[in-house]
Parts: sequence; structure tokens; C-alpha cells
Amino acid sequence: MNPVVAPELQTTAWLNVAEPLTLEWLRGRVVMLVAFQMLCPGCVARGIPQAQRVASTFRDRPLSIIGLHTVFEHHEAMQLPSLRAFLHEYGVDFPVAVDAPGDGEPIPRTMKAYAMRGTPTTVLIDADGRVRSHVFGIHDDLRLGARLQTLLLEVGSAKGTTGPGPRLEGAGEEGGCAVGAASMCH
Amino acid sequence: MNPVVAPELQTTAWLNVAEPLTLEWLRGRVVMLVAFQMLCPGCVARGIPQAQRVASTFRDRPLSIIGLHTVFEHHEAMQLPSLRAFLHEYGVDFPVAVDAPGDGEPIPRTMKAYAMRGTPTTVLIDADGRVRSHVFGIHDDLRLGARLQTLLLEVGSAKGTTGPGPRLEGAGEEGGCAVGAASMCH
Amino acid sequence: MNPVVAPELQTTAWLNVAEPLTLEWLRGRVVMLVAFQMLCPGCVARGIPQAQRVASTFRDRPLSIIGLHTVFEHHEAMQLPSLRAFLHEYGVDFPVAVDAPGDGEPIPRTMKAYAMRGTPTTVLIDADGRVRSHVFGIHDDLRLGARLQTLLLEVGSAKGTTGPGPRLEGAGEEGGCAVGAASMCH
Amino acid sequence: MNPVVAPELQTTAWLNVAEPLTLEWLRGRVVMLVAFQMLCPGCVARGIPQAQRVASTFRDRPLSIIGLHTVFEHHEAMQLPSLRAFLHEYGVDFPVAVDAPGDGEPIPRTMKAYAMRGTPTTVLIDADGRVRSHVFGIHDDLRLGARLQTLLLEVGSAKGTTGPGPRLEGAGEEGGCAVGAASMCH
Repeated sequence: MNPVVAPELQTTAWLNVAEPLTLEWLRGRVVMLVAFQMLCPGCVARGIPQAQRVASTFRDRPLSIIGLHTVFEHHEAMQLPSLRAFLHEYGVDFPVAVDAPGDGEPIPRTMKAYAMRGTPTTVLIDADGRVRSHVFGIHDDLRLGARLQTLLLEVGSAKGTTGPGPRLEGAGEEGGCAVGAASMCH
Repeated sequence: MNPVVAPELQTTAWLNVAEPLTLEWLRGRVVMLVAFQMLCPGCVARGIPQAQRVASTFRDRPLSIIGLHTVFEHHEAMQLPSLRAFLHEYGVDFPVAVDAPGDGEPIPRTMKAYAMRGTPTTVLIDADGRVRSHVFGIHDDLRLGARLQTLLLEVGSAKGTTGPGPRLEGAGEEGGCAVGAASMCH
Repeated sequence: MNPVVAPELQTTAWLNVAEPLTLEWLRGRVVMLVAFQMLCPGCVARGIPQAQRVASTFRDRPLSIIGLHTVFEHHEAMQLPSLRAFLHEYGVDFPVAVDAPGDGEPIPRTMKAYAMRGTPTTVLIDADGRVRSHVFGIHDDLRLGARLQTLLLEVGSAKGTTGPGPRLEGAGEEGGCAVGAASMCH
Repeated sequence: MNPVVAPELQTTAWLNVAEPLTLEWLRGRVVMLVAFQMLCPGCVARGIPQAQRVASTFRDRPLSIIGLHTVFEHHEAMQLPSLRAFLHEYGVDFPVAVDAPGDGEPIPRTMKAYAMRGTPTTVLIDADGRVRSHVFGIHDDLRLGARLQTLLLEVGSAKGTTGPGPRLEGAGEEGGCAVGAASMCH
């Protein structure tokens, strides 16, 4: 099965960015599109934090995280001032687009074009603008990390390099037992 | 910096496997070596569960998870019968080796050969037997997934294929809001 | 120090209840007043879930949980339609009052009368209408359970009974090891 | 139903205490008896940490936490040196008794006398030495806090006092939104 070209975003507003973005403009970079609603518990508890972890972990790589506010229920409850305050309080600083309202139906336009089943939905788009992964619900981090790496390595290859490769430095954390420490485990 | 060849394992016993394993024998597969102690809280709470998640997530890929019981403290408390019961109770079913005791020092031999600083330590070895990542403490899952994928894609390439690639099927979970459901969020 | 009488609630709307409630009317019952904002991350992640656990754990006891929406920032973002949708999506079914706007200041009236420092804030009021505990941030469950029990036992005593007493039935959960089971731990 | 007198502990060793303890000797204090096995995952992940939280939260109250190592499986894997190292690594500093081996059966003596079904099991004993609660698995903290408080208030009453009562000082934590802070939520 060949990947399909990712439909262009249809939006009415953008937050956290000076100018509206387009997938066309982002060609050459991997895009992680995160559809959410600010009052969707699974988005707040898991989807948004995961997107923030991805932004932090891959911050030096050719990857753009784009939030897409796809309201398909409680429209009056999730207007722009509420969304703006939500992003501020939750510390979301990647660009977020507001999906354009549907034409006589509650499902907004970009959500419909991607045939999303609900929120959160995560779509991975490669540097050539093709949809390579589409997950409703929550990816586990291991699988998401692997999928992103595949697309990021392709960017490296396209540039004629050998790809960024894994870094050797550690990412150690609390909870380990160190050799020779007085109190060995911490 | 060129990756170094992973030192061969020096062991006194193996559990969860019929025959002792060697890195030599595992050449052609990616190896994730997880050094732990059964009484190290960080290993029990985070290192072992992460290794089990990796085993499950990448179970169809050319990846071998090898546990290495590197006891460098409380030796009398973590003998073979205790380790065997530990693996049973925690449902660890990947192969586990017991690191060979050090020669007149508390640090066991494989641990010393790898210059490990403590437990848990995770070492990623590529299909050519070279150390590509060495982390004391806990990797986060996103980064570990990305690093594993890099090594796994190399195996695919070496075989002249295009690599396994990301799968398109979803991995949805609880917590999302679905379009059109009576009770939309669950 | 003698406990002070809890100031009466000053509200503009009530949700999840047919008629407005007053502390006066709730005299004879213990009241747990939970001040929150729907866009306060600590309230959403910890304060609201704790109030729901309390409602469930003490559901047969003379205890009323009252939510108080004390908006002191981003007022335009947290209007009634947004609050209503929030309560629906998060499954909050205890009565929730909207704190009355301040007179020329952002702090609403009830919040000011209680000298609350922010959200979440939990106030415990005894059956005689006196403030017995006031915590900004999150109580831990052990301490909150103990404080509630003190007030609930007083209700029992005031009625001339010996108090409800602890129940002997268990509340077992997953993760234990049972005697005689084939696979002992689960 | 009248509470039964708690059977005396039958033990072969004590750790974290200079002299063996008896329930007889602890009369006048509330006792929380926590039966566990060092290789029981539910005990390690939840039972032991809960006992440590109780010890910390109620440290100024007439309450004694007693661990009871009730090994009924993998006996050879959980001998005294292993238990001692386990307590050290997990930072358990309340007194722990080793339950006396059963007479020709795997169930140890105290475990049998209390008719425990497995581990973890938590037994609450009042200041008069009577069993007031017996839970296999994990108590939730709210309920456990309430049950402990009931027994602790009885100690206060028996002494002719009005009981310790809830403290008014807060126990605030991270995650709240404070009035007037530049960055309001943290």
C-alpha cells in the first residue's frame, strides 16, 4: 500500500506562531500532527503531554509538532479565548491551528479530510508530505519513538548523509544503584 | 568516534533459556543488554518493566533482550534461588545471565568489561556486535524506541530490503473522545 | 484556637443540582468544599479526581462534596458553557457552584471571604458549620481520610450513637500473592 | 460482631529493632500489621510504600507499624540475608518480624493464626489489642486514613483528652494556581 499525500490543513486561526503554517511549507521536515480538544480528558492527560515529550526529545531534529484543535462536540465551550488560556496554563508552546468548521455538520474540515475517528489522533507525515502513520488514541512512547526515527532517518538519507544516528551520551535518571556510593541506591 | 566491539559476556549461569547464549552467536540481530540487580529498586520499578515493554513492542523484529544479573553489593542476598524466584514472580521471560564474580573484587566481570557505573544499565549492540548506546539509569521510552529503530533499520538494509518501516495500524487506547458515540469520551 | 464559622457561599449559578445549596441548609452534615478552576492543571489532574474518590469512598456517610468554581484569571475563558462541558467530560456529578464575581477585582467573593490563596483549595466544614481544615494545593489521601473521619465521627456522636466505625470487609486489589493459587501472584 | 483479640505474633527474628516486640507490649497503641513477602510484586510496588506513607503521616501519633515477613512460597529465595538487604535497599525502617515456619506446612504460624489469604495483608489492631480491620490486597489511602483515625481517636478518648483532632496547617503541593503570581500555575 502506498502512503497517501497528507491533505492540506484547513484552519481559521493559529496560536503560538506568527504566521499560518501549511504542510506545503513544511515539506522537507517530518510533521507530527496532534488533533485534540481542550476538554477531552485523554488529550489533556496523555496526548498533549506526549506531544510535549516528543518536542523536547527531538528538539534538534527536522521535526515539527503541530497541534490541531478539532472540536466536534461542545463547540460553544471551546472557543478561541478558552483555547488560548488552555495553551497558556498547560505550557503548550508548539504551533496550534484551529480546524475550520464543517459545512453544516459538527465535524470540522481537516478532521473530515483525514477521516479521523476522534481525539486524540496522531498523524505522522514524512518529509515528502505523505501520511505514514495514523493513530486514534494514544501511541505508546516506544512505538512512537521508533516510527518518528524511521521518518527522521529518511530525511538524513535524502540529504546524502548517513543519518543522525543514536547518541552515545547517557540519559540517566534517579532510582539507580551506583557502584561505590556510600548509600548505593537513590 | 567509532563504536567499540561489545565485550563477550562472562557468565556463570543462564535462566529462561536452554543453552548459554553468546554475543557472537547473536550476531545479525540487535541486542539490548539490561544489567540489573534483583534488589535494586530502580531496576524493579522501571528497568525491568521497560525491558518487558520493549520485548512486547518489538517482538516480531530481529531484537534479543538479554538480562544480566550484575551483583556488586549484598552478594549473599541475591543468589541463584532468589533470582529464579524473582524472575518467576515478576514474569520476566527473556533470557537472563548471571555475571561472573570478579577476581578479588565485588564488581563482576562483564560489568567491569563494559565499565558499567551501576544498575540499571542498558547497552544497545548492533547486528555487527558493536556498542551503539550505553545508558546508566533509565532511558525514556521515546529515545529508546528511536535508538532501537535505528539499529533495526540497519539490519533491514543489510539484508537488501527496504527495512521494516512503520506499521500503519493504530494502537489506540482508552481515554479518547470518539465521533458519534453516545457517551463520547471514555 | 477556636474554629471559625464558615462564611456562607456567594454564588451566581449551580450545576448538577436542582436548587442552589447553602451551608446553612447543609448543617448537620460534614461539607468538603473544593475550590477549583477548570483550566488549572493541578485541579484537573489531582484536585477533581481526589474529590471524586472521596465522594465514592464516603458515599454512605453524612458528607456533602461541593465544588466551587473560583475563577480569578482568564475569566472570559471559563464561562458557564465551558464549565458545563468540562463537568460533563470529566464525569463530575457532585454539585458545583459558580463563585460570584468580585466587586471591581478579579478575586471572586466566596474565595475572598475564605481568604483562599489559589486553586485547588479544600476546606473541611464540620456539622456545626465551622471551618476545621483549609488546604491550598493537594492533601494527601491518608491525611484527608483521617480528617474527614474525625468530623464524621463527631456527627455520629452528636446523634448519640457510637459512630459508624471502620468496616471489616476487605478492599482487596490486584497485585497480591494468594495462598494456594496455581499462579500465586497476579 | 465483636472484634476478636489479635493473636500474638510468632516469630523467629526481628529486624530494625533492638528487642523482639509483642502485641502485649504494644497495648495502649494502635498497631498496623503489614504482612508481606519481599518477592511479592504487589507488596513491593504498593504495600510497602503505603506502610511507609502511613509511618510518615502519623509519625507523632500513638501508632506502631510492624512488618511481618510471611513467606509461604519460594522459602529458599527469601532467607534472612535477602530480607535484610531488601529492607536496606528499599529504605524500610519500621520493625519487621520474620513469621515462624509452619509445622509441616508452607504457611507460617502467625499468618495461619490470622487466617491471612496472601500478601500483602494489612491488619489494624486497636489499643486494646483487638483486630478492627483485616484487608488482603491494598487499602486505598482514603479508607485506610479514616480507619486509622478512628482507632487513634479512641486512644485519645481513653486518655481523657478530646483527641488529637485535625491540624489546621496546610499540606499544599505543586500543581496549584496561586493568586497574584506572575506565572500563576506551577
